[in-house]
Amino acid sequence: MILPDMGGTTLGAALSAVLGLLLIAGCDCNQRYKYEIKEFQVPLDHFSFLINATFNIRYLYNDSFVDKSNARTPIFFYTGNEGDIELFAQNTGFLWEQAERQRALVIFAEHRYYGKSLPFGSSTFNTSLPEHLAYFTVEQTLEDYAMLITFLTNDRQMPVVAFGGSYGGMLAAWFRMKYPHLVTGALAASAPILQFSGITDCDIFYRIVTSVFQNAYNTNCTANIAKSWKLFETLGASEAGKKQISDAFHLCNALKTDEDLKKFLDYVEEVYSNLAMVNYPYNSSFLAPLPAYPVRQVCYYLRELQTTDADLLHAMSSALAVYTNYTQSAKCLDISVNSNADDSGWNIQSCNQMVMPICSNSSETMFRTSSWNFKDYAEKCYKNYRLTPKPYDIILRYGGRNLEATTNIIFSNGLLDPWSGGGVLQSPNDKVFVIILPEGAHHLDLRHSDPADPPSVRDAREKEAAIIARWIQDF
Amino acid sequence: MILPDMGGTTLGAALSAVLGLLLIAGCDCNQRYKYEIKEFQVPLDHFSFLINATFNIRYLYNDSFVDKSNARTPIFFYTGNEGDIELFAQNTGFLWEQAERQRALVIFAEHRYYGKSLPFGSSTFNTSLPEHLAYFTVEQTLEDYAMLITFLTNDRQMPVVAFGGSYGGMLAAWFRMKYPHLVTGALAASAPILQFSGITDCDIFYRIVTSVFQNAYNTNCTANIAKSWKLFETLGASEAGKKQISDAFHLCNALKTDEDLKKFLDYVEEVYSNLAMVNYPYNSSFLAPLPAYPVRQVCYYLRELQTTDADLLHAMSSALAVYTNYTQSAKCLDISVNSNADDSGWNIQSCNQMVMPICSNSSETMFRTSSWNFKDYAEKCYKNYRLTPKPYDIILRYGGRNLEATTNIIFSNGLLDPWSGGGVLQSPNDKVFVIILPEGAHHLDLRHSDPADPPSVRDAREKEAAIIARWIQDF
Repeated sequence: MILPDMGGTTLGAALSAVLGLLLIAGCDCNQRYKYEIKEFQVPLDHFSFLINATFNIRYLYNDSFVDKSNARTPIFFYTGNEGDIELFAQNTGFLWEQAERQRALVIFAEHRYYGKSLPFGSSTFNTSLPEHLAYFTVEQTLEDYAMLITFLTNDRQMPVVAFGGSYGGMLAAWFRMKYPHLVTGALAASAPILQFSGITDCDIFYRIVTSVFQNAYNTNCTANIAKSWKLFETLGASEAGKKQISDAFHLCNALKTDEDLKKFLDYVEEVYSNLAMVNYPYNSSFLAPLPAYPVRQVCYYLRELQTTDADLLHAMSSALAVYTNYTQSAKCLDISVNSNADDSGWNIQSCNQMVMPICSNSSETMFRTSSWNFKDYAEKCYKNYRLTPKPYDIILRYGGRNLEATTNIIFSNGLLDPWSGGGVLQSPNDKVFVIILPEGAHHLDLRHSDPADPPSVRDAREKEAAIIARWIQDF
Repeated sequence: MILPDMGGTTLGAALSAVLGLLLIAGCDCNQRYKYEIKEFQVPLDHFSFLINATFNIRYLYNDSFVDKSNARTPIFFYTGNEGDIELFAQNTGFLWEQAERQRALVIFAEHRYYGKSLPFGSSTFNTSLPEHLAYFTVEQTLEDYAMLITFLTNDRQMPVVAFGGSYGGMLAAWFRMKYPHLVTGALAASAPILQFSGITDCDIFYRIVTSVFQNAYNTNCTANIAKSWKLFETLGASEAGKKQISDAFHLCNALKTDEDLKKFLDYVEEVYSNLAMVNYPYNSSFLAPLPAYPVRQVCYYLRELQTTDADLLHAMSSALAVYTNYTQSAKCLDISVNSNADDSGWNIQSCNQMVMPICSNSSETMFRTSSWNFKDYAEKCYKNYRLTPKPYDIILRYGGRNLEATTNIIFSNGLLDPWSGGGVLQSPNDKVFVIILPEGAHHLDLRHSDPADPPSVRDAREKEAAIIARWIQDF
């Protein structure tokens, strides 16, 4: 997940904004995996008896591994999250590898309101039509998946395993919780189902990002970043300083106003968060084209404690370019685009149910201090989308930390992943499996096997595979 | 539950109509139990972000048993079903008796659209305003209860046990399934959660009713009833015959048309069903004022195999009067009222989600043959309420017979209860308890202790009490 764009947000409010949870996948593999693209009709509103409208969601289908003589063919069902489903299919190699091993039918279901599963076509996100956004909820999405599985199994006894990463992992977990009759088990990778109001400290995310940067090369890295905010603000106060920043960072659009400066600072902050999430051990391009262990690379440029403003600016610019221009193809830096993510949908979900408080403290992190202010947050949501967020919806329905009755879910978390702070790190019972990847970034375990994978990721995948095999066997 | 009135139904269609599941309580105890009546505000629509309207549901509150020094006070929460909540409170003595024993807070929550919990006041059931009926669903109701419990516990650790009978028992079970973080366990008495399309034979209900009548006195009883349909039809074909029926049964409004005759036959059929349900071992007045074991009484009047039409008519009339005029206060028989039930709400639920197929076969039962025809059924629903029933909604969400992952529910069923055919009679695992009451009618175990209770009911209550005590202790 990425940070939602709250539009017209202040520096502080951007930090305090709920983070869009799920990494929007940008494919780094150019159609490594193949599938048919199908469509499935779902009701727009599963829960009332007023709206009879329907629309189609997309799903990806591959039965090439299936043993047709097996009446109990497993289904590996990816609970699509906030993005085009094809991107997730290409970035979830573990599912494909296990499907081959288990001779499973592979399904990747696209989340309503993302990719091409738009209930109102091009006017889906027209904010002057609030009825278009009304059915964009977790519950409606889970119902779409429940109907699709019912259709696919067609009364046959087929063990279904849900897979998901980040917000998709949250969906996989919740799907198992609410529809255990349809889903035998779920692998919820890097799923911060506890990153909600009142049950997790809001500062955990930025503390983990800071820790990742601290341990990447040397501690001068975070010291430089911490110092940079003051420098940006001081320089940014004057026209000449704004130009100095714009030149140093090769901005496509030079900073003119204080608002521009704010956007720039929010952008830089988000880049750090994204870097921590995709700090993978090999070249990848999930959020952006990146080298292996990109945070180490960034911190390499910040390894000296810079004493002059000009040196710090220069070092920062080189550091940022690891994320913004690794391919060296960009002529200038466009801060209006910060990842491969399509965040229009996630910004809306952040304003209805997915209210995930984030804050930070400059004395404990390399970030600026920012408090979590729900009132301001809710006002922005209303202003942007005419939506009134319900910050307790998710806890009411999915139980928050009270997971006693939950079974057959694997919660995997990489300790290098900022979202692990809101993850399930302790098992409530012996049917819920918690797998910790000390060397893992955001749902690294869901990705394809790679020679560069650290041992903890290989171990985790082996454990996950064994648990999934047992679920299928016990079915 | 009672049979829904499908309005303008044919004889066959009435049989094929889904049975309204839950006994609408008529109090036989004149405020045996006391409580405060409170209100709680709930969203009209919990699931979309379009409707911001709210309304109040009622709930009954009694903290007289509570040990105020106990920080973990149990809450006994009756998941209100299709009727005024006060009637259920007065007819669920077992909850009160156990609350005293466990020093529990007693809550009876009124189901939205029943009693005084009407979202649109007196226009709630105005069928020309379909938006008024749109939020009358199981899921919305469970959300009301989830919010109320969250409000009552207010973040304190309080074990909540859900109680319910018939449709209320279905709600209690589903509530535990979907909100296990809020409900430690549920007693689902006579809850036919399996009486849905494709998972239970539609003829089971009337086969059980027949069996109850067969075993009540002697087998002439069902033989006479089986014979009566032909007689009614033959007589009913002529004006004189219609008069003969009207006179024999002391009808307030003499049968004039074939439609009148149909209504009369449907009425008689429903009386048999109701009698089986409330075949309690002591005088009661849940659906109507009745003697102990009313079916035995009915069958006493039908103990001789009647050979002449006049004798059969006379015997039938005496038999029916056990139900229709036990108090001997009625001057004539009004067939437009067949129980204490307020069935306007249930008829609507039968037309959205609670589609529970019922059919019968005259060769195996004392009833007329009637097939289940969903198409006709759905057409009537649309005609009456502009509602298109979704016959698979409940199975999709609550799993039908696939209850493997379910825990901490007691399913109790009386084998004399026609609804037991759709009940859970086999436990899916060792955390779900199935209690069979060979001598029990419809949720007899939920009623207050009575010296006339048969041993199996006393045993069942003891087992239930022990399981509930353990849930509270283990919490």
